[in-house]
Amino acid sequence: MKCLIIAAGRGSRLRQLGDSKPLIPVLGVPLIERAIRSAVEAGADDFYVVTGYQGELVRGFLVSLAARLGIPITPFINEDWEKENGLSVLKAREYLHEPFLLLMADHLFDPSIAREMMAHPPDDGELILAVDEGTRNSLIDMEDVTRVKTEDDKIQNIGKGMTDFNGFDTGIFFCSPSIFEALEHSTEKYGETTLSGAVRILAAVDRARAFHTSGHFWIDVDDTSAFRRAEKALLNRLRGKSHDGPVSRYLNRPLSIRISRHLVKYPVTPNQISLFSFLCSMLGAGLFAFGGYPGLLLGGLLAQFASVLDGCDGEVARLKFQGSDYGGWFDAVLDRYADAFLLFGLTWHALSANLGPLMLFIGFVAIIGSFILSYTADKYDRLMRDRIIHSKVPRLGRDVRVFLIFLGAIFNQVPLTLTLIALVMNIETIRRVVICRDHG
Amino acid sequence: MKCLIIAAGRGSRLRQLGDSKPLIPVLGVPLIERAIRSAVEAGADDFYVVTGYQGELVRGFLVSLAARLGIPITPFINEDWEKENGLSVLKAREYLHEPFLLLMADHLFDPSIAREMMAHPPDDGELILAVDEGTRNSLIDMEDVTRVKTEDDKIQNIGKGMTDFNGFDTGIFFCSPSIFEALEHSTEKYGETTLSGAVRILAAVDRARAFHTSGHFWIDVDDTSAFRRAEKALLNRLRGKSHDGPVSRYLNRPLSIRISRHLVKYPVTPNQISLFSFLCSMLGAGLFAFGGYPGLLLGGLLAQFASVLDGCDGEVARLKFQGSDYGGWFDAVLDRYADAFLLFGLTWHALSANLGPLMLFIGFVAIIGSFILSYTADKYDRLMRDRIIHSKVPRLGRDVRVFLIFLGAIFNQVPLTLTLIALVMNIETIRRVVICRDHG
Repeated sequence: MKCLIIAAGRGSRLRQLGDSKPLIPVLGVPLIERAIRSAVEAGADDFYVVTGYQGELVRGFLVSLAARLGIPITPFINEDWEKENGLSVLKAREYLHEPFLLLMADHLFDPSIAREMMAHPPDDGELILAVDEGTRNSLIDMEDVTRVKTEDDKIQNIGKGMTDFNGFDTGIFFCSPSIFEALEHSTEKYGETTLSGAVRILAAVDRARAFHTSGHFWIDVDDTSAFRRAEKALLNRLRGKSHDGPVSRYLNRPLSIRISRHLVKYPVTPNQISLFSFLCSMLGAGLFAFGGYPGLLLGGLLAQFASVLDGCDGEVARLKFQGSDYGGWFDAVLDRYADAFLLFGLTWHALSANLGPLMLFIGFVAIIGSFILSYTADKYDRLMRDRIIHSKVPRLGRDVRVFLIFLGAIFNQVPLTLTLIALVMNIETIRRVVICRDHG
Repeated sequence: MKCLIIAAGRGSRLRQLGDSKPLIPVLGVPLIERAIRSAVEAGADDFYVVTGYQGELVRGFLVSLAARLGIPITPFINEDWEKENGLSVLKAREYLHEPFLLLMADHLFDPSIAREMMAHPPDDGELILAVDEGTRNSLIDMEDVTRVKTEDDKIQNIGKGMTDFNGFDTGIFFCSPSIFEALEHSTEKYGETTLSGAVRILAAVDRARAFHTSGHFWIDVDDTSAFRRAEKALLNRLRGKSHDGPVSRYLNRPLSIRISRHLVKYPVTPNQISLFSFLCSMLGAGLFAFGGYPGLLLGGLLAQFASVLDGCDGEVARLKFQGSDYGGWFDAVLDRYADAFLLFGLTWHALSANLGPLMLFIGFVAIIGSFILSYTADKYDRLMRDRIIHSKVPRLGRDVRVFLIFLGAIFNQVPLTLTLIALVMNIETIRRVVICRDHG
């Protein structure tokens, strides 16, 4: 699937953030790279980008991006970049003879919008525009947005000043090559060189269809206020991962998002974050074992800090399109080592205080229970998701475990903590085994 | 997909094993149940069974089987069961108006034969017969088998005494309803009431196709010698599971198959076997911890016995069609507890002998390494399979771990064993993490 991206405008309302709008980073990733990577996630694999203002700079970036992502990106030059965006679209005419995705470099969007659109290609000569009904969308700049009037899935009219409208232009198009004739026709007949002009031409002959996409994320990053809203929206999308446990949801995730927001600015990889979090846990475990109460206190704080950081690797991966199966798995393996060493550190601490062999047994049971709970998590989570079982029991996972360790350490209640973890983790394992037997 | 099964004959050559041939159990499962469950695995879901000799007994069994499996099974009566099998097929005529699978109750077969056949339905009026070229099949009774002459995928001739042949009738047919006319035609014109007669009629008009299936398991259980070969073949099919480790392959599996062969005769479920194996391990762990050297010796033997038994649950499940995702997972969870308790028992034994805190640390590292190795096994095995990486490193899993524990216990080398397990399991984990990074 080919994809045309318009990246020719100057974006003067964003100039305080950078001179070349497509290259302005939003949470560590330039706008044009976000557009291309979102389109790749949606299924596009051959890119044509129209550049204009500061075109040389943008084209240089695109060449390196193409090499980095291993996908073809063909840049064009639109000398008339100061005029309307329809002219930029016309520049790519000779390369696009089949339906193609058309995006704006300064729009961020949820790739699922484009993916769902692409599942239903345009009929012969048709243009499809993703239209947001906007009733639930606070990200729209009502002053500036292009308005759309639809009836069912037919576009009736489109334009900026319209008063009779029921949706908004998201800047995501799925076009037949007929768009080019429509642009020429609009230019010649009405002197109108905008994309909207071409849409109106096609609407008049019933060839402009709306793809309703209410509720999905998209935003036109047109000024600094929109830029701030875009960053906030991207960060908010990191919350509420379905298998976040209670401690993660209410404590760790809000903190880790604040940290990730800064981390994205640096060239640190998610795996490096996982490794650093792991080392913090290991240091904490060592402090547990050898540090007396001061070590216990400091180790507890370190363990909880590592648990917060443990959310950042995934967040940075999602924000910077660096997610991988391997990364998630590597993180999980390190977490298992970290959990075991933290609990072993506590057990050692208890033994040093001469708490006897029973404590050793309890510590061992806490370690094995924690481990088996992680071992059963995959199957249990999948079952919960597939069967849509709404359990009243909060998800017991690493977030809860480390938080209990943290509390036990700072309040100097090691035997109680180990006993509690030993009981809770093993009872929860048995509960999962029973649930999986009954519902599997 | 409808399936017709012929279970009308007397099977006098098997009478020493049971009076009603379809009900004779092969490794715990009656022949007719094996045929039906194999067909279910292949994709059939609506059964018609022609009964004859001792029909009431067989029909009673089918009613209870239908309830047990939750699938429709319609039994018929062929009063002329002493005559040829073609008459039995004709009895089902009024129910079968679309292509259907036709099987013999006394043939065992690999469900994949029928599944692959069903992927290519017969053309209008065609009959398809699975034909084994037999070059690698020692299960064929050359005296008794029906021979087939094919040219490419066309059947030229079929019959028992033929000298010009290049394949064998497996008894697995995928028929159009045209089989019924062919049977009538064959009966009226030649007085030939066998299925082979009908196949010859269809072959004469180019409507009999061969589905070549060389290398897949099938056997006609016609006499006591074939019965013994069938049991042996089913047991042999349990070997060589791709992720069997070296100890499993050369020691545990040969032993467990011998045990499973007897276990299938009793109404013991795979999960009960898993649980019993688990209890043996736990008892072994207890003996390690509190029994001195005699306990160590006995515990080691128990642990290794439990490891052998640990193969039986899966084997019985496969032999008796009782496999389930839950069963495999339940077994894995119990194995994790068993592994941890065995290693903890050894650690406790070492501590009782006053071997100091270093031993505690080593025991802990052995436990965590074993655990993480199991935790990483899924992903690693999948990668190895998907990428078809042929590793020179033998698969390190539970079989090797328990065998090391067994050796360490009987030779009274606990510190050495724990150190070895701690090293090997953690080094192998790191190796897997690196391999998954490089190939993932």
